[in-house]
Amino acid sequence: MTDQRIAIIGAGPSGLAALRAFESAERAGTEIPEIVCYEKQDDWGGQWNYSWRTGIDQYGESVHSSMYRNLWSNAPKEALEFAEYTFDEHFGRPISSYPPREVLWDYIDGRLRSSNAKDKVQFATAVRWVQYHRDTDTFTVTVEDLKTQTTTSSEFNQIIVATGHFSHPNVPGFAGIETFPGVVEHAHDFRGAEKFADKRVLMIGASYSAEDIGVQAYKMGARSVTLSYRSKAIGHVWPQGMEELPLVERFDGSQAHFVNGEVREFDAVVLCTGYLHKYPFLPSDLSIHSSNNVYPQGLYRGVTWQNNPKLHYLGAQDQWFTFNMFDAQAWYVRDLILGRAPLPSADERAESIEQWTQRFKAIASEAEEIQFQADYIRDLIEQTDYPMFDLDSVVEIFQAWVNDKVENVLTYRDKQHRSVMTGTLAAAHHTPWLRELDDSLQRYLSTPPKDELEKLLDQTETAASAKTT
Amino acid sequence: MTDQRIAIIGAGPSGLAALRAFESAERAGTEIPEIVCYEKQDDWGGQWNYSWRTGIDQYGESVHSSMYRNLWSNAPKEALEFAEYTFDEHFGRPISSYPPREVLWDYIDGRLRSSNAKDKVQFATAVRWVQYHRDTDTFTVTVEDLKTQTTTSSEFNQIIVATGHFSHPNVPGFAGIETFPGVVEHAHDFRGAEKFADKRVLMIGASYSAEDIGVQAYKMGARSVTLSYRSKAIGHVWPQGMEELPLVERFDGSQAHFVNGEVREFDAVVLCTGYLHKYPFLPSDLSIHSSNNVYPQGLYRGVTWQNNPKLHYLGAQDQWFTFNMFDAQAWYVRDLILGRAPLPSADERAESIEQWTQRFKAIASEAEEIQFQADYIRDLIEQTDYPMFDLDSVVEIFQAWVNDKVENVLTYRDKQHRSVMTGTLAAAHHTPWLRELDDSLQRYLSTPPKDELEKLLDQTETAASAKTT
Repeated sequence: MTDQRIAIIGAGPSGLAALRAFESAERAGTEIPEIVCYEKQDDWGGQWNYSWRTGIDQYGESVHSSMYRNLWSNAPKEALEFAEYTFDEHFGRPISSYPPREVLWDYIDGRLRSSNAKDKVQFATAVRWVQYHRDTDTFTVTVEDLKTQTTTSSEFNQIIVATGHFSHPNVPGFAGIETFPGVVEHAHDFRGAEKFADKRVLMIGASYSAEDIGVQAYKMGARSVTLSYRSKAIGHVWPQGMEELPLVERFDGSQAHFVNGEVREFDAVVLCTGYLHKYPFLPSDLSIHSSNNVYPQGLYRGVTWQNNPKLHYLGAQDQWFTFNMFDAQAWYVRDLILGRAPLPSADERAESIEQWTQRFKAIASEAEEIQFQADYIRDLIEQTDYPMFDLDSVVEIFQAWVNDKVENVLTYRDKQHRSVMTGTLAAAHHTPWLRELDDSLQRYLSTPPKDELEKLLDQTETAASAKTT
Repeated sequence: MTDQRIAIIGAGPSGLAALRAFESAERAGTEIPEIVCYEKQDDWGGQWNYSWRTGIDQYGESVHSSMYRNLWSNAPKEALEFAEYTFDEHFGRPISSYPPREVLWDYIDGRLRSSNAKDKVQFATAVRWVQYHRDTDTFTVTVEDLKTQTTTSSEFNQIIVATGHFSHPNVPGFAGIETFPGVVEHAHDFRGAEKFADKRVLMIGASYSAEDIGVQAYKMGARSVTLSYRSKAIGHVWPQGMEELPLVERFDGSQAHFVNGEVREFDAVVLCTGYLHKYPFLPSDLSIHSSNNVYPQGLYRGVTWQNNPKLHYLGAQDQWFTFNMFDAQAWYVRDLILGRAPLPSADERAESIEQWTQRFKAIASEAEEIQFQADYIRDLIEQTDYPMFDLDSVVEIFQAWVNDKVENVLTYRDKQHRSVMTGTLAAAHHTPWLRELDDSLQRYLSTPPKDELEKLLDQTETAASAKTT
């Protein structure tokens, strides 16, 4: 085992889960292989590193993160909590169910802060090409140190791809969009909604990005927010000033023509049209080619590449569960690599893939999809020493969250959920989400004076009554 | 010669010059090697293909082009004219000196439209990795067909890198920019200035992008346009509403603090901070590492990689001359590959590099830099059968252009220059640039009715008098 070398590509939540999985085994006295983690950003955290840059970063690489200012978790933290490092352990007191970006970054950073994990990460290093050699059953990984602009290659026995699949936007075309005179940007490049104040904003899409960026625009005072769906409306009870229309057929100057014949004028368009699986550093026979779904094809147990089981993917699924799913995957992949979990034969793996695929194809509702992912995670945890947790209760948290959003997309983040790991009920945040304009960790953990909150409340009520008149 | 395989990477103006150079030899009866040109866009033309997309394209690749709507040539076409395919030959009549994008695209496309060059281009194909093998003195080029998402590798004897160096923006940081509430974009992602109407816009930079995007914003009705320089102001006589300030020290919300102590409020920031030499598909020992200048280090005669003379770059220089310089380079590289031009020994090449480097280092003015590039091109053309042209007269055209801009940056595009290739004096465009809002080829070649032009003139005068009151 000791002469094995393992490359982890990416040090976001999935890559960090892999580092933690190996670290956890090492702490327990197991000899682990040599681990090298390549991360193209200057720090770890992946998506959770906010960058003001869009398109191309300071090294000339495409910007990884799709984060924006004032991004607060859009699902309860109780659904993503690590089973072996709880929010209580990290913060020492109950916090709210929907923390902002910096708070979640602090949580995932905190789990590894005092370990030796950072020594295994080569930051500001982009993976250029991975070549598999059948004769030696090894991989050559060629990377560029972006600071020195030096390329080097080295050999690895196994590869863990943890680059995520929310970094390369899917950017479809729309007739006439090339001469739309206002802002046109993909959600990946959206950094803040302040510029939409008093603007008529069109979101194209009907998933999380459209919902949340739409609500951000509302929060920042957009004159109107229109969401355009292809197949199915989101269907929330929208506040006044927000509405859903079917797909845009074409643009004509600043006008959008919708397929139902309606025509509206807009000042800005945000393409909330999703992301691509994209692995430009991998040969096509090692790459996932899939839409964003909960069971991408080609992966045994959702992680191990069927046609080359020395290659693993973490977090390649569409995600209800996130951080704790990455943990379950990372622990299982670690155990495959350590030889603790047996790798079944190709035929057995194919049979397993086939069974899960049948079940995946039978999914008929959102509720069933959440249950599918819970069962998928349970199956992984059962193979490892990762602490099992009450997945069915998390499913219930998801259901409550979905209902809360339908009811009021402006207040669902003010609800409190109970941790299935610790039993702790979330705290109420000091400021309702709609009135909170400071998303810093410092502000989040502070106790603002009462009169400040009352002043904010007054302002919001004045603004709300202005909107309804 | 016939068993040689040559890869051209990129089918922009430089790649097309290489295709034309080989085609020209083939038409003259020379047997040419097998040529494969890889182009990641769906069509050729490189920068001159306008895309409304920014950041990431429809295939998940970084967007190549930095073009924008209403981009008109910012230098006289008489300075870039091909010596062996003139504007007269293409358009059949005199056209103006500063045509818009589509007109120039048509010109470079037209030269190869009726040839077999397109058969040699693999469109929508990204080069992933180039590996040199010392033992066989060949290169393995690995590419991805972006439509089928299939990677393949093949062997080549020589490589021509023609990907340009105006696609990967240089994006420096500025304190506080991460919370600037308005639009922040690099010039690479700028697509049109309509959204700047009535806005206070800040351009950071003092080169072509800042000058032209600033003037575009003025044209589209910006409330104010501020250009911020690091070392030296552009120094034009700016129209009312445009001004230059030194560098931004930091942002504080929507305020910019300049190093001279001035503070201004802005609605939008455009980073006109240049571009990087970036070749993510090349090992670092084959990559140019240089700032943008007229004599990037490591290239014999500005084209052939000194440490591996089977690798060539076209258009790697900062550019006064463009299309005709690429031609001169392409013809010379072609002749090296065909064995018509002798490749000097490494020592002789080093000596040549040293001589040109000394001269490059002695450049003390813009005028000397233009002369340097003219002499550089002359030296290349003298080695080949490319038609020599009156480079000194082109230098004079450049000098006139520089003076025209200093005098009036809003009207320099209305001037007419004389072709050194044909002696033809450029036509006057039917509409002054400041009033022309349609940049299409069709509009450009049309004859608008006189009363339309008079109406436009009235509007402009009304707008101008409104600005000055």
